[in-house]
Amino acid sequence: MNIPRTSFARIVIIGGGFAGISLAKKLSKQEVQVVLLDKHNYHTFQPLLYQVSTGGLEPDSIAYPIRKILKDFPNFHFRLALVEAVKPLTNDVITDIGILKFDYLVIASGSKTNYFGNSEIEKHSMAMKTIPQSLNLRSLILENFEEALLTNNLKERNALMNFVIVGAGPTGVELAGALAEIKKGILPKDYPDLDTRSVQINLIQSSDRILKEMSENASKKAEVFLEKLGVNIWKNVRVTSYDGKTVTTSSDLTFETATLIWAAGVKGATIKGLDVGDFITKGERILVNEFNQVKGFKHVFAIGDVACMESEEFPNGFPMMAQPAIQQGKQLGDNLLRWIEQKPMKPFIYKDKGAMATIGRNKAVVDLKHFKFQGIFAWYVWMFVHLFFLIGFRNRVVVFINWVYNYIRFDREARLIIRPFKRRLKR
Amino acid sequence: MNIPRTSFARIVIIGGGFAGISLAKKLSKQEVQVVLLDKHNYHTFQPLLYQVSTGGLEPDSIAYPIRKILKDFPNFHFRLALVEAVKPLTNDVITDIGILKFDYLVIASGSKTNYFGNSEIEKHSMAMKTIPQSLNLRSLILENFEEALLTNNLKERNALMNFVIVGAGPTGVELAGALAEIKKGILPKDYPDLDTRSVQINLIQSSDRILKEMSENASKKAEVFLEKLGVNIWKNVRVTSYDGKTVTTSSDLTFETATLIWAAGVKGATIKGLDVGDFITKGERILVNEFNQVKGFKHVFAIGDVACMESEEFPNGFPMMAQPAIQQGKQLGDNLLRWIEQKPMKPFIYKDKGAMATIGRNKAVVDLKHFKFQGIFAWYVWMFVHLFFLIGFRNRVVVFINWVYNYIRFDREARLIIRPFKRRLKR
Repeated sequence: MNIPRTSFARIVIIGGGFAGISLAKKLSKQEVQVVLLDKHNYHTFQPLLYQVSTGGLEPDSIAYPIRKILKDFPNFHFRLALVEAVKPLTNDVITDIGILKFDYLVIASGSKTNYFGNSEIEKHSMAMKTIPQSLNLRSLILENFEEALLTNNLKERNALMNFVIVGAGPTGVELAGALAEIKKGILPKDYPDLDTRSVQINLIQSSDRILKEMSENASKKAEVFLEKLGVNIWKNVRVTSYDGKTVTTSSDLTFETATLIWAAGVKGATIKGLDVGDFITKGERILVNEFNQVKGFKHVFAIGDVACMESEEFPNGFPMMAQPAIQQGKQLGDNLLRWIEQKPMKPFIYKDKGAMATIGRNKAVVDLKHFKFQGIFAWYVWMFVHLFFLIGFRNRVVVFINWVYNYIRFDREARLIIRPFKRRLKR
Repeated sequence: MNIPRTSFARIVIIGGGFAGISLAKKLSKQEVQVVLLDKHNYHTFQPLLYQVSTGGLEPDSIAYPIRKILKDFPNFHFRLALVEAVKPLTNDVITDIGILKFDYLVIASGSKTNYFGNSEIEKHSMAMKTIPQSLNLRSLILENFEEALLTNNLKERNALMNFVIVGAGPTGVELAGALAEIKKGILPKDYPDLDTRSVQINLIQSSDRILKEMSENASKKAEVFLEKLGVNIWKNVRVTSYDGKTVTTSSDLTFETATLIWAAGVKGATIKGLDVGDFITKGERILVNEFNQVKGFKHVFAIGDVACMESEEFPNGFPMMAQPAIQQGKQLGDNLLRWIEQKPMKPFIYKDKGAMATIGRNKAVVDLKHFKFQGIFAWYVWMFVHLFFLIGFRNRVVVFINWVYNYIRFDREARLIIRPFKRRLKR
């Protein structure tokens, strides 16, 4: 890769997510050369992907061009590249655009959908981890209704109007709530020819409560909110297969559906060269020490979702969400500069800022360390925090205006089916 | 198609563009049944497509769900369908979702890119008539720069940074201006590793002036504006072929480019059953009389770009743009209601409201009937008119904010490469 060497140490960062970007920002204007690699030319604000899928926001509003984030930083280089492997012994990153030498390597490749080895579910279900996936899901949801109009076969029509969401973490809960609001507010107007009361939203969770990473109060209240919106919640049910038509589960329950959304888990997006043996833990995350160093190397680091730093409070690593990623990125930035200045590095200490999820208008649950609350105030807090963490002034303004508009009008206008519409029903 | 018959006459409209939607609005709340068919579930505001291609606006802001436009109209049905043929003798519309009977048929299928029979150009060039095409072009432009970074071959790099636009109508002129502003305002910051001064924007026009449908003054001034922005204008040059690498022309001129944007012409998007012989004229438009009736039929109409109504002032039909389409849609709505009430129809009279094109910040040209002006005031008029004609309050607000932001910041933030990135260079 034709990036000129300078007298500065070269730090290669793989991934422009929360972890990679917060590290990059820390290293700005320092005497290091930074090369950031990502397979997209933009940073995605993943917590709002479900709003793209449900027509509430436009994709460009929750993403941001990586080059623009880095444009004021000297000594920075971005390359749109797919990393194929890393060779920590020879300091090489192998990509589809060539080989890159590094002095320090930071793996911030995030996480990917975990199908737990079930390739049938992987093939037939929809995921929601990227912008293209979210746009696909948006198209599919709308296509379902267009197709439901065309069939007189009741079973077929019901399957098209049945949405099964697997996994009741924040993603699953937020998506279920948004779909329920669409059912109530938009479908009856948009599809007067359809009996939209038949629309079913099923949320399936393998454990005994939803939002199981949050407090019991949050779980309970979220359940009440969802049920008020008409979402069917199935707890202690494990989905075992889906052939594109029928969902089977560990119990007698089955669902006939054209749409299975898989939000049941994520795993580390590891990279060849550090993806086997001692390097990885349960959940396929790369094991790191308290300085985010990968086992056996001093100059190779992993941060964010892909990294597993074991601690007393979190023996399986920190939760795979934005906060640990952002904090680790910042801390590693400091540590790298310390190291280069031959000062000792500082161990990472996670500041748990809590968790939150929104269910629908005026309905959210928030767990702070010393204060847990639910309802309309939680909803305002949720919105404020998400606006605050969005990158870019324009994005914040556009998202804010969309939210105000959607709130006042009970609407979501980003309802374009952009992909070519392939009909699935035969006639 | 399972749309129930009522006691009202059924009017089938093919196409949800300016003509189809303005007709549909006229027929709202009347005692007729209306079925609108379109291959997209949204109405596209075509005059702003070039801003989607150049990152200035998000696609959802210039499109609007058709169901939402029609939601308050009783007796209205929308179907997402591809029309395969019409049978005016038996009152049938053949679509990919079944056959539909009509009492009155209105063809408002618009226009499509005219390659004048050159299939090689069609294969290798980009067009900009739809949202998906515009998003593709946006991705390609950004991909070009990402790829230019990777090659040391000067010829290859220059080809990636050379943009050739064929056709200097409003689309070509507006696109050329926007690209020139990107070259100046965004590229040097986003691609510090590239010598972006090598970026070339070539605008090719077969006749002796650009914007040839507008006044001489507008043409001259637009040319001055474009040249100031660094666009190379080639007049009296006809492009003869493009193999994906080299553009050849009627003169000695050739261009080595990875990107040819074809904006050289449109033709009627006719429909099988009315697309041959006496039905169509030059430009493949359906010949209609002063009531928009298709030759030989009383109950089959064509409006907008696809219709050719010959008049003294416009012997080859009205210009293929929004105004004639909107006006014909309204007038036909009135006429259909008159006819159903057994009153005589009124002939269509085109009110020429003029034409306008924007070249860049503070630069536009406006031709009104009695008043032609160019420059900053024209630019304000252009913006006001486009905001006014956009459908939807949210769209107007979001577009306005984007424009204000882009103006103040010299920026265009919608720079996501959404489609999967396929590299073209071999390495």
